[in-house]
Amino acid sequence: MAPEVKQNNKRDRSVAQRIKQWLGIVVFGTTTRLGRAFDIGLLWAILISILIIIVESVPSVNERYGTYLKTAEWIVTILFTLEYIIRIWVVKKKSGYIFSFFGIVDFLSIASFYLSLVFPGSRPFILLRAIRLLRIFRIFQLTHYLDESAILGKALIKGLKRITVFLSVLIVAVTILGTIMYVVEHDENKGFTTIPQSIYWAIVTITTVGYGDITPVTYPGKIISSVIMMLGYALIAVPTGIVAAELTKQKDQDVFHHHKRVGECPSCGLDVYDPNANYCRNCGKPLPEEALTPGDKQPTISG
Amino acid sequence: MAPEVKQNNKRDRSVAQRIKQWLGIVVFGTTTRLGRAFDIGLLWAILISILIIIVESVPSVNERYGTYLKTAEWIVTILFTLEYIIRIWVVKKKSGYIFSFFGIVDFLSIASFYLSLVFPGSRPFILLRAIRLLRIFRIFQLTHYLDESAILGKALIKGLKRITVFLSVLIVAVTILGTIMYVVEHDENKGFTTIPQSIYWAIVTITTVGYGDITPVTYPGKIISSVIMMLGYALIAVPTGIVAAELTKQKDQDVFHHHKRVGECPSCGLDVYDPNANYCRNCGKPLPEEALTPGDKQPTISG
Amino acid sequence: MAPEVKQNNKRDRSVAQRIKQWLGIVVFGTTTRLGRAFDIGLLWAILISILIIIVESVPSVNERYGTYLKTAEWIVTILFTLEYIIRIWVVKKKSGYIFSFFGIVDFLSIASFYLSLVFPGSRPFILLRAIRLLRIFRIFQLTHYLDESAILGKALIKGLKRITVFLSVLIVAVTILGTIMYVVEHDENKGFTTIPQSIYWAIVTITTVGYGDITPVTYPGKIISSVIMMLGYALIAVPTGIVAAELTKQKDQDVFHHHKRVGECPSCGLDVYDPNANYCRNCGKPLPEEALTPGDKQPTISG
Amino acid sequence: MAPEVKQNNKRDRSVAQRIKQWLGIVVFGTTTRLGRAFDIGLLWAILISILIIIVESVPSVNERYGTYLKTAEWIVTILFTLEYIIRIWVVKKKSGYIFSFFGIVDFLSIASFYLSLVFPGSRPFILLRAIRLLRIFRIFQLTHYLDESAILGKALIKGLKRITVFLSVLIVAVTILGTIMYVVEHDENKGFTTIPQSIYWAIVTITTVGYGDITPVTYPGKIISSVIMMLGYALIAVPTGIVAAELTKQKDQDVFHHHKRVGECPSCGLDVYDPNANYCRNCGKPLPEEALTPGDKQPTISG
Repeated sequence: MAPEVKQNNKRDRSVAQRIKQWLGIVVFGTTTRLGRAFDIGLLWAILISILIIIVESVPSVNERYGTYLKTAEWIVTILFTLEYIIRIWVVKKKSGYIFSFFGIVDFLSIASFYLSLVFPGSRPFILLRAIRLLRIFRIFQLTHYLDESAILGKALIKGLKRITVFLSVLIVAVTILGTIMYVVEHDENKGFTTIPQSIYWAIVTITTVGYGDITPVTYPGKIISSVIMMLGYALIAVPTGIVAAELTKQKDQDVFHHHKRVGECPSCGLDVYDPNANYCRNCGKPLPEEALTPGDKQPTISG
Repeated sequence: MAPEVKQNNKRDRSVAQRIKQWLGIVVFGTTTRLGRAFDIGLLWAILISILIIIVESVPSVNERYGTYLKTAEWIVTILFTLEYIIRIWVVKKKSGYIFSFFGIVDFLSIASFYLSLVFPGSRPFILLRAIRLLRIFRIFQLTHYLDESAILGKALIKGLKRITVFLSVLIVAVTILGTIMYVVEHDENKGFTTIPQSIYWAIVTITTVGYGDITPVTYPGKIISSVIMMLGYALIAVPTGIVAAELTKQKDQDVFHHHKRVGECPSCGLDVYDPNANYCRNCGKPLPEEALTPGDKQPTISG
Repeated sequence: MAPEVKQNNKRDRSVAQRIKQWLGIVVFGTTTRLGRAFDIGLLWAILISILIIIVESVPSVNERYGTYLKTAEWIVTILFTLEYIIRIWVVKKKSGYIFSFFGIVDFLSIASFYLSLVFPGSRPFILLRAIRLLRIFRIFQLTHYLDESAILGKALIKGLKRITVFLSVLIVAVTILGTIMYVVEHDENKGFTTIPQSIYWAIVTITTVGYGDITPVTYPGKIISSVIMMLGYALIAVPTGIVAAELTKQKDQDVFHHHKRVGECPSCGLDVYDPNANYCRNCGKPLPEEALTPGDKQPTISG
Repeated sequence: MAPEVKQNNKRDRSVAQRIKQWLGIVVFGTTTRLGRAFDIGLLWAILISILIIIVESVPSVNERYGTYLKTAEWIVTILFTLEYIIRIWVVKKKSGYIFSFFGIVDFLSIASFYLSLVFPGSRPFILLRAIRLLRIFRIFQLTHYLDESAILGKALIKGLKRITVFLSVLIVAVTILGTIMYVVEHDENKGFTTIPQSIYWAIVTITTVGYGDITPVTYPGKIISSVIMMLGYALIAVPTGIVAAELTKQKDQDVFHHHKRVGECPSCGLDVYDPNANYCRNCGKPLPEEALTPGDKQPTISG
């Protein structure tokens, strides 16, 4: 009968729905015990997969443990692939996840592995998965870290225009100073062979890195270098001063903006795991700011 | 008849005037579409001309593409020359442009090219046109950048006296420390051969550049070096602290000073492109601060 | 008779008690003349013992003065052992000292010596006693220094979260940049042999240390390096700005919190030497904040 | 007759007095035209005498121009000797000048020359006269510079305690880190031969100087080095933050303290040249703050 079938369908859908919801909590959640455990496990898997690729590039290690590393890499990547598929499956607004920052990173970190099977030269790009480590902010004291990086970000953006001015002047200075050193040194110094080389040297010097692969040998060259070093030593004050000033001024605004959306979704009862979310990740309904009660309880699973 | 001729003259003058005015808007303007397009094109031309000269100094590149690069350089420089002539022609107060900062830079960047045809040794000085890149501040969000660099400049000037004190002490310190190291090391170290060399080393060390072309080898020398490094590491705090303090204090003054002179000139109807201008670049009449209406509209061309 | 024996016991205990109390003042005290003299002597002993171990590692010195150094080391370590035993004996709450920061450091600095007799390879770890030098804060203008380090500590902790965010981003950046450089350089450069090596190079570069043991040789490598250097040069602004902002903001709170617990203990009459103590180190009674009178007088010794 | 002789004596004394006073104005004065001219001449003489000694240490220069340089040096030093004698002669409170900072520097810069005639090895110490260059603050916009260095000095002193704490921790850290690296590296690296060498390396690394004369070669060594570099890169924030915070807080106090003692002495009419003087340098009388009128006029010479 229609009603029965419907009910049966409903029950079937309900089971799939429940699995989907449960998986959603696991892979996206951070405030539930399971969600947190999953995230920590994921972080370790990312760390291990990064270490494998780093360590594999050392010939002596690769010779000895190559097979084990390869196997481990396969396992980790298959897990990541499963995770990616699950994420897409459980998320309501699929394009929202796929084209989000972490969505793209997740895809690239898997795709780069499969690509490296065809083009071995692209292997090192698997290390792009290091970006996935930034998920760490979502795990440990999540709200605090997100806040902090927001404040830092705000200060950096407010100071960005000033830093752009600073960098433009720096690049022009480095071009001119590098050229002057090329004129002064290139006859007697096998380091300053070309102008790009001299500009590279000027950058190494003005940033106080000072490799020493190219160094002035003539007296005029050494005098000009001394001026560049002093300049670089004094100039570092500019970006530092800019950021310090922005952060000092930002005191007052920080006091507000502390309403968090952490708690239960009023429509579907799902635990909301993202303090910055405006819409429930599961049912897509808007989240009222005041209705949410913070907590670490297991969410109610309702069909 | 006199009136007719006069009218004819008027019309002729009017045509020349209109071309002149239109060119003025193109080469000097930044708020009109055409003016902006011209500026962006100019920036690319400058960038390309710089890259040509940089790249040409690499022997392997010059051997292969030398003829193309030379041709491109000629084309760019001829364009720059035309631009310079137009700028002088269209500006009312010619000496105002010729002896302005950018006027001198524009002249040198052309002159250095023609000079290099006679004296090939002066070729690298064509890179002085890198300074022209600073025009970038006039293009992208012009007013903001100009403001920013003004605030930064004010902070730097206010902190300049303090930085002068700091640099004087630094130079005296470096002279004395370099001499001490010369006394301690020069018998056993082929790096510290002369006092100027030792002073150069002291600068390399105190600014934390540390090339490593000259390094201490005796134990007393290493102890003194350690002190110099610690000094340099702690001293960097001084200029940084100065700039940070100035920028933090400057908060209050920044709120005012936001009247901009961007809009239409009330006398000749020309779009005023420079927010810091007190006089119209075209007709030389003073610009009333309040009469200007900001906008991106095409200026009215009137004889 | 019982009472007499008791009294005798009392007197005996009283003598031991007095010695114990006197020793307590000497080894733990900092505001009494004797306590300060002991602390200064101790510092010198620590300094000498550190210098002995440092100097001994130089073969030419060890050959000549080896026996004297060994003897001096034995003497110093026996003195330290005695000091440690006395400290445990005189302190009321023994576990309080033993498991305190300095208690553990004191133990390790002695134990490492005796251990090195059995395992000569562990010798250099005796230098852990360098940590004992931090006792210096307890000697010179003690309260001020403790205050200062507390303020600094508070600022650092408040800024710590921000610095953690900064370091996480830095580590991810360094991993990716190092990998990119490995891809770009490792065919033509014997420095970038493996990915860990390239990451090490990226750290050397972004922190502006710039040893120069590994340097880029290809043009793309030099361009990427230049970007990394600029990044490192600009990024240093972030932690600096964070600490500067915290210290600037901390002004207001510093005005209060200036009640010091320095003076005589009201229960046992012992001079209280630690301004942060809430309980008397000798008798374990709580110290009333207002009852303490600051001073440098010899404490009353009462049974 | 007695009165006549007395008067004659008076007149004689008066002439000597007037010369003395005039010389006093010339050598000590900075606000009179003559005094300023003398100071500028003196600065050039100091600069030249420093350049002579620096340049003389270069063998190729010394071979060619040795005789000229020697002669110039003799001339300059004789002038300095005369200046020193005049200074002592004209000053009222002789010990005040002789034992002042600049008095001692003036003496040493002459004495070191005469000493070098007997002990040629002490020659380079003549460069101590570089300290005399600090007189420059007394010449150019004197009051402003003195003010600036006072403000800077105040900030540095207020921050000094914090910087001492910072440096103590740094030295302890460097000792321990250097020792650890010695243990890790010294078997496979000919750079880390002794513990002092390793500590020197740790200082070179933590201050971000990074000569590259000693670098880690083992993987554990490179990992520890990376940690040290990150530490040094983050730690620089501490002294910088301290100075920036002090300078930012100092705003309010700077508004006052602007009464200057520049003008005519009310007792002897001498132009007072030192804004920080409380007593007239010529007659020793106290200087009333309000009675002084600033100016650049020639002082009245009265017997």
